[in-house]
Amino acid sequence: MKISIIGGTDGLGKWLAKFLKSRGFEVIVTGRDIKKGKEVEKELGVRFLNNNVEAAKLGDIVIISVPINVTERVIKEVAPHVREGSLLMDVTSIKEIPSKAMEKYAKEGVTVIPSHPMFGPTAPSLERQVVILTPSEKHKKSEWFNKVYNFLKKEGARVYILKPEVHDKIMAVVQGLTHYSIISLASTLKELNVDIKESRKFASPVYELILSLIGRIIGQNPYLYADIQMFNPRIEKIHKTFINECIKIHELVKSKDREGFVKLMKEAAKHFGNEAKRGAYYSDKAIFALTREIEELKKNIGKEIAVKNLDSENIHIGTLKEVEDDYLTLKKNGKEVKLNILRTEVYYNVDEIKKKLFERKYFDISVLFNKDVNEKIIEELLKKLFDLEIIDIYELNDKKSVTFRLYGYSKEELREKERKFKEIIKNIGGSLRYEDRS
Amino acid sequence: MKISIIGGTDGLGKWLAKFLKSRGFEVIVTGRDIKKGKEVEKELGVRFLNNNVEAAKLGDIVIISVPINVTERVIKEVAPHVREGSLLMDVTSIKEIPSKAMEKYAKEGVTVIPSHPMFGPTAPSLERQVVILTPSEKHKKSEWFNKVYNFLKKEGARVYILKPEVHDKIMAVVQGLTHYSIISLASTLKELNVDIKESRKFASPVYELILSLIGRIIGQNPYLYADIQMFNPRIEKIHKTFINECIKIHELVKSKDREGFVKLMKEAAKHFGNEAKRGAYYSDKAIFALTREIEELKKNIGKEIAVKNLDSENIHIGTLKEVEDDYLTLKKNGKEVKLNILRTEVYYNVDEIKKKLFERKYFDISVLFNKDVNEKIIEELLKKLFDLEIIDIYELNDKKSVTFRLYGYSKEELREKERKFKEIIKNIGGSLRYEDRS
Repeated sequence: MKISIIGGTDGLGKWLAKFLKSRGFEVIVTGRDIKKGKEVEKELGVRFLNNNVEAAKLGDIVIISVPINVTERVIKEVAPHVREGSLLMDVTSIKEIPSKAMEKYAKEGVTVIPSHPMFGPTAPSLERQVVILTPSEKHKKSEWFNKVYNFLKKEGARVYILKPEVHDKIMAVVQGLTHYSIISLASTLKELNVDIKESRKFASPVYELILSLIGRIIGQNPYLYADIQMFNPRIEKIHKTFINECIKIHELVKSKDREGFVKLMKEAAKHFGNEAKRGAYYSDKAIFALTREIEELKKNIGKEIAVKNLDSENIHIGTLKEVEDDYLTLKKNGKEVKLNILRTEVYYNVDEIKKKLFERKYFDISVLFNKDVNEKIIEELLKKLFDLEIIDIYELNDKKSVTFRLYGYSKEELREKERKFKEIIKNIGGSLRYEDRS
Repeated sequence: MKISIIGGTDGLGKWLAKFLKSRGFEVIVTGRDIKKGKEVEKELGVRFLNNNVEAAKLGDIVIISVPINVTERVIKEVAPHVREGSLLMDVTSIKEIPSKAMEKYAKEGVTVIPSHPMFGPTAPSLERQVVILTPSEKHKKSEWFNKVYNFLKKEGARVYILKPEVHDKIMAVVQGLTHYSIISLASTLKELNVDIKESRKFASPVYELILSLIGRIIGQNPYLYADIQMFNPRIEKIHKTFINECIKIHELVKSKDREGFVKLMKEAAKHFGNEAKRGAYYSDKAIFALTREIEELKKNIGKEIAVKNLDSENIHIGTLKEVEDDYLTLKKNGKEVKLNILRTEVYYNVDEIKKKLFERKYFDISVLFNKDVNEKIIEELLKKLFDLEIIDIYELNDKKSVTFRLYGYSKEELREKERKFKEIIKNIGGSLRYEDRS
């Protein structure tokens, strides 16, 4: 199945390309920047086209992933070329405008499923992620809809089906109010000329998390955030309410109205109900995720660990030497590698990682046991200490010859394993017959 | 060493009592509520006194942990009774007022170290937590100061020493602005009558995290938050700046000034510099902590795991049956236990947990090997499959008798281990001599 992603060289489009490719689909991406397109082509092993219409013609599924302010224009350009029997989707953060445009410009016989994946391009997978679909009644009954829905569920996503206008109403709060308050906070810290790095020294967990959310949002494409605020007419009321509440609380503090402040906070808490408690729990998990990770790392100082650099995707295997601030130091072939804990994933089961990463070397060694020995029992026992398997058995007079294949990742390691293996064999009633080095 | 915590039956005071007790100190707590005090006494194994002055007289260290609005009054009551040579501290979120009061009312010869632990009573430890100390120049040179400083560092805390007025200036932003914006958001959601639970269905990671921060704050004692806003005169300017920025952005959105919005956001991003990127990384760790935990859990379905209920501190060991939404289901002795993942800690190394939790049963079994067998090698090998040790060895003609002690947690488990052990022994050149059941 061919999937064309219109605007797939950047952001969420690129994420989708990578994700869908990893799930076995044939992916085509388009984009205006040819150089970037070629890079993405190489990086992800997908096909790049500098032509939206061409890509639309080729796709069994066509996904529009372009900025909000040009979404309508791109749909007008692309939708008429989507083949009958194909599926047309978008992934825009607003839904009324693109839903209408896709229905209007797509041919009869094309299924339209507008979507809003509620996450950014740093999500590790679809697990637990929210995806909102806003198909019309007609398309909701289509075969394509079933396929999309089942695929998303299988990937662990939380899928919701809404009318486009209900979606936009909810998003005015979920995205509109959230972004608005966070960008206002960012701008306030700038106006107050707060030294962010310095202030972080004195951070409470909540402040650190808020700073990190600000960093997360203001570091992204500002046009996306402008469009989310500006293309949703329901946001104006939200802004006004927020400003009112800020002024109300300011007045309470200024007039030292302690009971008034407490009343306001209690009423908000009452409105949240059980959700307040859940929030406290959830934020605990989030806040202490890094703390726990660092505690776990410290327990493993001196041990061999595998560390994946999330930026380069390189995996480093070495002895953990030090954990300090945001960094860990790994000793690797006599050299030291310093890695940012925030940008790594740590694996403590190093053997499993090695098996995935490296080609194993091996050597074969034959051992004589008494005929009545059960070699399966011996194998099970030795497997706890060695990466090995039995490759040959035959009886020889009153003896039994068992050939083991021992695996390792380097000559040195194999040599050491050989020594150890022979020592054990001698002590569990076996005697060496011959050995064969690969 | 005796530590008296004035106001130690609740909140951070109670946390401190538990923490310090776990570190081997003798702890006394005081509080107005005798019933609650008695409960804490029993729960934490500390001593409760319904008398602040008495507790102050007894402590080698006296820590004031009472609400901001009564801190000054309590210091006035308690400080004169702290013994010469003792240490007087507070843990209030503001520092100018209590620092002055302690210096004023404590006897000459009492060391005063005002402090502000920047975390709440849900912190798992002092690891990575910020603690600010605001001692005067004189007390900074004291022996007590060194002791406190070294203790905090050893526990992994990030310790900073500031002048009280600098502390309060920083906190006007770190706590003042943060709480103010979060409480304003909470009040806005209430005013807009947003169904929080329903809205969470459609949450982006940022919205979910913001909701959780709101829940975290509004679920706590509102008087603390009122006092933090009201006892710090620097906060008024902060409020005003925030309101201004909110209005500024509102105007940009209303007039559809896309470039103006982008400019404001870019300037804020510029002010954040590298901190924006760090924020994105940090929030990724926080946001995906739960996702990763759930992914890890799903990998372990069908396996035996240990799950600690963070509320009851009970540990459940069982087979992981299901993971759904916030819950995991454990099969335990034929029954099913459903636990909230947000309130649990999961351990995959079940053996380690069992060793800590349960008393081990054992049985001894003697095995004859050839005299030239190295029993250390056999022991090392068997330890990979069994929890065992060698407790006796002696030579017997051309044989060697080795007595193993095998451990387990139930008779059934031991019986199964015994069967397995005997089967292995037979196959590695050993023969049974006798056995002895404990």
